[in-house]
Amino acid sequence: MTNKPEKKITLGLDPGIADTGYGIIESDGYKFTMLTCGSIKTAADLSLPDRLYILHEELSSILKNYNINLAGIEELFFSRNVSSAIKVGQARGVSMLTIRQANIQIIEVKPNHVKQAVTGVGNADKKQVGEMVKNILKLKEIPKPDDAADALAIAIAVSQLGEKYLS
Amino acid sequence: MTNKPEKKITLGLDPGIADTGYGIIESDGYKFTMLTCGSIKTAADLSLPDRLYILHEELSSILKNYNINLAGIEELFFSRNVSSAIKVGQARGVSMLTIRQANIQIIEVKPNHVKQAVTGVGNADKKQVGEMVKNILKLKEIPKPDDAADALAIAIAVSQLGEKYLS
Repeated sequence: MTNKPEKKITLGLDPGIADTGYGIIESDGYKFTMLTCGSIKTAADLSLPDRLYILHEELSSILKNYNINLAGIEELFFSRNVSSAIKVGQARGVSMLTIRQANIQIIEVKPNHVKQAVTGVGNADKKQVGEMVKNILKLKEIPKPDDAADALAIAIAVSQLGEKYLS
Repeated sequence: MTNKPEKKITLGLDPGIADTGYGIIESDGYKFTMLTCGSIKTAADLSLPDRLYILHEELSSILKNYNINLAGIEELFFSRNVSSAIKVGQARGVSMLTIRQANIQIIEVKPNHVKQAVTGVGNADKKQVGEMVKNILKLKEIPKPDDAADALAIAIAVSQLGEKYLS
């Protein structure tokens, strides 16, 4: 009998109305491998219901392609202003619903926990986080666009912290 | 051949994580009749994804029972703070998605337009709005809870203003 460490697939999500970054990684608890990453974009000339509908459809279809064990999404405490908070809240609500409909458990992580988990420093900047995502996932470059790199950082953090958060 | 005015069914929605008020009315453009109203409630001890899931399921099931032509939801510009704006945004996003999935057109109305349409005054208070909702719909009492009465006001406003907004 072998005692192979169990592999876990984790989704990280950085939601927005215009761009929702996603990153999916696989990990045995030691090594992290990127399965995919990208950004779901919705055109600004569409109505808000249409934009939310597209976000839901595209995210649903991504979730169907991977056997995801756990999902992470950042907690939001602040925003430029109330109007942008409502906008990002709308995309966040639709994202959470979509993941819940796929019966995937969702963990909300604080932004400084994500930075801490990925760089070792709770107040790391975007560039440091991007560099560490590249190193941890053994990629040639920092993933583009920015929100895909952020989503991968969330996935790495949640994959590491998952059991602690879930307990 | 009779020339009966066409009847239109309109949904008004006042979304929130804990309580989402809904009101459904029928109108021929002159008379307004309430078909139903109420509030979708989600327990505070559930996880946020579970609360959003319940909101989606219950709203979907209400939409299936009525042949709704048009839906109205208030525009949000302000909130107590950013944290509550994100919360209500999450419920609003899920509500809009659910209505869009049912192929119902959604109109966003400004709160003062709702008050103007129902009471004739753009800065009417909650009590005045409730009284006028009762009178317009020929009800014995102001509908309860508050968010159901608000949702009916939104439905009346959108039913009246619909064509103007849609044009």
